[in-house]
Formats: sequence, C-alpha cells, structure tokens
Amino acid sequence: MWEDNVRKVVPYVAGEQPQRRDIIKLNTNECPYPPAPEVSKLMENMDSSLFRLYPDQNATSLVDVLAEYYKVKPEQVFVGVGSDDVLCLSFLTFFNSGKPILFPNVTYSFYDVWADLYRIPYKTVPLKSDWSLDVDGFKQENGGIIIANPNAPTGLYAPLSVIEEIIQANRDVLVIVDEAYIDFGAESALPLLEKYDNLMIVQTFSKSRAMAGMRIGFAIGSEAQIKYLRDVKFSFNSYTMNLPSLVLGTAAVRNDKYFKEITGKIIETREWTKKELTRLGFSFPDSMTNFIFAEHEKVPAKDIFGYLRANNIFVRYWDKPLINNHLRITIGTDDQMKVLISTLEAYLG
Amino acid sequence: MWEDNVRKVVPYVAGEQPQRRDIIKLNTNECPYPPAPEVSKLMENMDSSLFRLYPDQNATSLVDVLAEYYKVKPEQVFVGVGSDDVLCLSFLTFFNSGKPILFPNVTYSFYDVWADLYRIPYKTVPLKSDWSLDVDGFKQENGGIIIANPNAPTGLYAPLSVIEEIIQANRDVLVIVDEAYIDFGAESALPLLEKYDNLMIVQTFSKSRAMAGMRIGFAIGSEAQIKYLRDVKFSFNSYTMNLPSLVLGTAAVRNDKYFKEITGKIIETREWTKKELTRLGFSFPDSMTNFIFAEHEKVPAKDIFGYLRANNIFVRYWDKPLINNHLRITIGTDDQMKVLISTLEAYLG
Repeated sequence: MWEDNVRKVVPYVAGEQPQRRDIIKLNTNECPYPPAPEVSKLMENMDSSLFRLYPDQNATSLVDVLAEYYKVKPEQVFVGVGSDDVLCLSFLTFFNSGKPILFPNVTYSFYDVWADLYRIPYKTVPLKSDWSLDVDGFKQENGGIIIANPNAPTGLYAPLSVIEEIIQANRDVLVIVDEAYIDFGAESALPLLEKYDNLMIVQTFSKSRAMAGMRIGFAIGSEAQIKYLRDVKFSFNSYTMNLPSLVLGTAAVRNDKYFKEITGKIIETREWTKKELTRLGFSFPDSMTNFIFAEHEKVPAKDIFGYLRANNIFVRYWDKPLINNHLRITIGTDDQMKVLISTLEAYLG
Repeated sequence: MWEDNVRKVVPYVAGEQPQRRDIIKLNTNECPYPPAPEVSKLMENMDSSLFRLYPDQNATSLVDVLAEYYKVKPEQVFVGVGSDDVLCLSFLTFFNSGKPILFPNVTYSFYDVWADLYRIPYKTVPLKSDWSLDVDGFKQENGGIIIANPNAPTGLYAPLSVIEEIIQANRDVLVIVDEAYIDFGAESALPLLEKYDNLMIVQTFSKSRAMAGMRIGFAIGSEAQIKYLRDVKFSFNSYTMNLPSLVLGTAAVRNDKYFKEITGKIIETREWTKKELTRLGFSFPDSMTNFIFAEHEKVPAKDIFGYLRANNIFVRYWDKPLINNHLRITIGTDDQMKVLISTLEAYLG
C-alpha cells in the first residue's frame, strides 16, 4: 500500500485565526499596528503584469536592505517564508549529527515538530522554576542547540552573557538563537557573530514589522552557514519569496522611524498592562516581548480563557503540562488592552 | 566542527533571471501575457493593514476555488509556494519506503535534487529514442513514481492510456503526475483520480496562469493523500501562502475566459513557431507545452544559444549529456517569436 511509505507526523497547531473582524485578537502575537505607510503605497502602484515573471530567486533587494540595516554582508543574510520556513530549513541543513539537539522544555512548540519531521533526535532542557534558562543543561553532549530569546511563551529574556556562555560551551555544534521577539526591548546576539562561527540568528517580520500576512523571516550568520542554507533552499524551491514579499518587505525595513515608533508604543502598552494585570492578581515572568505569560492567583487560566472568548477577546491557552494555568496575552493597542483589563476586572473583581 | 553535521547538497540551477527589461526572455517558460485583469484591480485595492495578521493557514479561498474549478472536494486540494514547494513536500511525505523511486532519465531536473536532499534512492528510466516514455521501465519494483506530463524539457505528451498503464502497474506505490504544462492542449489525468487511489496530480500557476511571480502551485489527489501532505506541511510551516497569493490566486482562477484566451493564443503562436523552425532546419518532439525543444540539422545548439544571447534573446541551454544539442525555447508573444525567427534566419540563412 502506498500509505505504508508515508511520513506520518503530528503537526504543529497554530493559534486560531478567526476571520471575524469584531473580535479583539490577542492570541497569535501579531502587531496591532499596520505596516509602514510606504507598504500601502507600493502595493497600490505595483505593476501586476510583472507577476507573469519568476521573482528574483536571490531576493537581492530584501537581502541587501537587511544586510545594510544589520551592518553585515549580504552573504550573511538568508530570507524565507516566515521564520518558520527559515528555521525548518535550518534544522534540515545543520542538525545531521545523529546526536540529540537541545532546547528548553518550555519554548516555541514547533521545535520538537521540526525535529520529529526530520527524525532528528532531541532532548529538552528543563527551565528553572523562575522560567530562566538552565545554562549547565546546555553543556551536555549534543548535535546542535536552538534557543528562543526572548523565550516563548514565557516572554523572558536571557542576558547576552548567558547566551554567550552557551555558545562558548558548544563550539563544535551550531547554536541557533531564534529572536522572533527581540525588537521589544531586548538585546540581539548579533554583535556576538564576529566572535563565534557557530552562532546563527533568526528573526521575523511577523511581529515587530507588522507583516505576518506577508510571510518574511530571515537568518543572519557566517558566510559559510548562509551558503549551506542557500544550497538546501535551492534544493527545495528556487523561488520561495514572491514579488510582493520582496518589494513590500524591502520598503518596510527602509522606514526605521516608523518601526521604532510602533515597537516603542507596544513596549509602553505592555508596561501599562503589566501594572494592571498585577493589580488584578496576575503574576508573570517579566516580559521583554509583545506578549505577557500570565497566571492568576485564584482563578484557573482555562476559565479566564473561556470567559474572555465568550466576550470576543481571544488570548492563547494551552492544555499542556507545566503551562496549563497560564494565558499568553498579546499586547494590542491601548484601547484593546483597556477593554481587556475592564473585562477581566468585571470577571475577577 | 559544526560543519561536519551539515547536509551538503548540489542545488538545482534555475534559468537566468536577468533584471533587464530590454531582452526577449524565452528561457524559463513564463507566460508572455499578464495575469487576469481582476488581479491588477484587487492588488490596487488590497487593504495593506491586513498584512499585520497571519494569513488563513488553510488557504480556504484558494483551495475552494480550485476544488470548484476542477470539480473535486476541497479536501482533495493542497496548495503551496509554487509546484516546487508542493512536489518537494510530496517527496518528503510519500517516498519513504527505502526502495528507489523512478522517473525518466530526461525530465524536470529538480526530481533528482529533491531525492538527493532527502536521501531518497532513485533510478532513472531511459526515454525511448523518440523521447517517449518507456512504459515497461516503470514496471520494475520501486518506492514511488514521478512523471512530468507533458514532459520537460522535451515538451512531449504521453496519452492518458500510457499514464493509466503505469498507474495500474504500480497500485502499491504513489504515482505523481506533474502537470505543470497541461493547459497548452494536453489532457489531464484528473479523471483517473476516481479510479486510482495511488495517483496524485500537481499543477502550477506559473505557466498558463501567468503568475510565476506569485508562487502558487497545487496538488489534487485523494482525501487521504492530501491529509498526509497537509500534516507534513503543518509540521514545516503553518502559513506558506501569503495574503496577496491567496487573494490574487483566487481571482485568477475565477476568470476562466481570460485563461482560455491566453492559453489559446500561446498554442496558436506555438504552432506558427513550429512551422517556422522546421523551415529553418530545426527538428523537435511535437510539443504540447509552452516551449519547443529544438535541435538544428547543422549548427550546434550551443552556438545558436550564444548568438541569440548576444542579440538579447534568452533561451535555455544545458551543457549536459543527451540534451546538449537542444535549445528549449519558450513561446512568447507573436511579436517576440517573429523577432526570434528573423534573428535565427539571419544567423542560419
């Protein structure tokens, strides 16, 4: 039977994407603000007759603008269909030793799915009770490491000294730092690239750059790493980035003022939300991201989740060990967070 | 060293994508006409503030319109980032038996690249001397089959009876029919889906639907096949199709009149070009695609390729055994083909 030869897997389950517009959507860490105004203008003026042609397979405009922005060479930049595409291709490219790769036991839940997809053995390293990284756990023999920093769904940021200690202790394997949430106040590991050839960094346009719908992610690493990653990508699909992604993604990076403005606003709203949640009896790791991972002192997370949902406010809840009494609440606009807080107040108060 | 664990591969090399607009580009089988007029209008009016949200991970609008168009259930349709994405994920999903998969020795040159990427053993079945499929060669033990029909780069179409014979002889493995070029006069294997649960068909928007730049491809198969493929896709990247691809792709399928008009024009131009090429001393398999695989009776293909290139006409040439005296010439507009023929005439005459 043809079915005997199928690669059977348990896929990742993303947060709900209700198509209704009357809800407050705080469940998938999207940006509450639109992309830079240039994006809209370029979209209107795009020449759709160019769609008949294949896009630039090297994604030159996007790679170049990212290289310029992050002060690296274009040969150090790889772009893909969201950071998920970049990370999954990285697992395939770099984690072939047969030894288990390492990542925290509570982190982005796609890591074990990618490992399973490619039959890569893995071992999880338990976080400490305060949700921080257990550095020593990353000093055992392994075939590679991936760390989300700041981590998801905790929102907690590990200082660069911690990341550096892990990289230093693992010079013979690749350490990928997934910085999907780096732009909300944390410090990127980018400066460490000059010192360590076993570090690669992955970021995304889906959160801070307000372009989840365009599917753009990127890796920055050594020229050697990026070359290997490109070889695998060109063995998979020559043209992954479509024309609108290339054109609009490039424009988004160019408007740095707008980028800083919206990430700054999200940080302000987050800090206000932290105070209000504390007042209502929630506790949480001190988030450096665009979400808060909150637990209430009395009321089970599942009940709060259900109540909010009934009131058209979607947050993220997992019925999984360790995290089943927490809600992951994305930071929306000030107005959205005020509605959230007053709704919670009515329920908990 | 981290480099020891790298998956080292020899990537596929796509045709050149010169960014100049002053050339006649007949080297990557793109459509010479723009996408349906609705695409342009929708693009202008697209609300870019929606880009901040993740796209519909199920690609519902696009899946539904394709299901309706091809008269199958939505559960039988899978969409991806061009047919390369769909095919590569299919290799990963379905070709896990350990036995060699089979495809012709002269065909789309990504098949062996995907097999190598995923360490899938393969065996090529030589085409007959007239470039037609050797049906008996596909009756040996195997772990799966992939056949491009019409074939590339030959342009030759195998009648459905031949395809059916191969499917019938291989009921215990999956047979993928890659119909990238099916819309230029050939007959799709779609009607065979009802009879055979080991058949899956893959098509693309990059040729006949004039949307290579938008990266849209799709598979149609049994509900069971599509479910397995979706599971693997959701283990790779939840959101592969960005918002513009979903919206504009859906619009393109809706305008069937325009689709038939442009494919009809390309067929007419192809038949005119065949006559002219014959007059100039070329021979070729009788193409049912939007390209012609032509060999000249006297002048080496490489020389003609160089001459055309010097005259700003790009066609495809491979310096590879079996096909190194052929040119693959994409069908452009009537005007472009007239320039091609007069340029060839000046050189060969």
